[in-house]
Amino acid sequence: MDISQTGSGQLLDLTADECWSLALTQPVGRLVWTGPAGPTVVPVNFEVTGRRVVVRTAAYSSLARECDDSPVAFEVDEYDAATRSGWSVVMRGHAHLDYSGSDGSNDPDVWPGGARALRVIVDVDEVSGRRVS
Amino acid sequence: MDISQTGSGQLLDLTADECWSLALTQPVGRLVWTGPAGPTVVPVNFEVTGRRVVVRTAAYSSLARECDDSPVAFEVDEYDAATRSGWSVVMRGHAHLDYSGSDGSNDPDVWPGGARALRVIVDVDEVSGRRVS
Repeated sequence: MDISQTGSGQLLDLTADECWSLALTQPVGRLVWTGPAGPTVVPVNFEVTGRRVVVRTAAYSSLARECDDSPVAFEVDEYDAATRSGWSVVMRGHAHLDYSGSDGSNDPDVWPGGARALRVIVDVDEVSGRRVS
Repeated sequence: MDISQTGSGQLLDLTADECWSLALTQPVGRLVWTGPAGPTVVPVNFEVTGRRVVVRTAAYSSLARECDDSPVAFEVDEYDAATRSGWSVVMRGHAHLDYSGSDGSNDPDVWPGGARALRVIVDVDEVSGRRVS
């Protein structure tokens, strides 16, 4: 196989509106930041409200310790191996911890049990996405 | 809804062997690094050979420009929304570009078309994973 040979799929850019709509269809995204140990990624349940991503976390988590007032990226995707197709959305923004409590509206539905008393809010500055089909 | 209330899923740590076995089942992972614009994440087709992750990329990609001789993370996961279960694997390591060409063995099967003449090799130092069920 020639190393320069690749598949036949086409890459198409998504509009910002498509990115937000698609992101909402998924229950899990991946929060990315630069921690003391270097580039770090954690899959999380999330919710979207306006142009913000909301994540819940425990006070002792690496996310809570390392993400406050930090630049982050957030990735959501969906792929189908059978048809070698799918899409991905990448957001860039700034995260901060929300200690204010919450009435529960717009809180993500978190799958694992255990206390997650903090909210991490990502204010998204930039979103891009693409589809391979 | 009380913000500290979460789901009923259990989080279980995976062994390193389980992490590698599960990673191999997926065609797409997410490469994470710190670029000039901050934390960066790109979904990629990948292959595993030994304790290395192999990715192909174009010479003009941000990945090629920014990842050489850099600390990176690599994430693979699989989730099922219906059962609120799944697993994730996170690797940490060091990436370098491979300009040596290749006989094509252990090259990932890349879905999109287009030239991808470079290989990015991630030497993995650390792997961890967990399952939510």
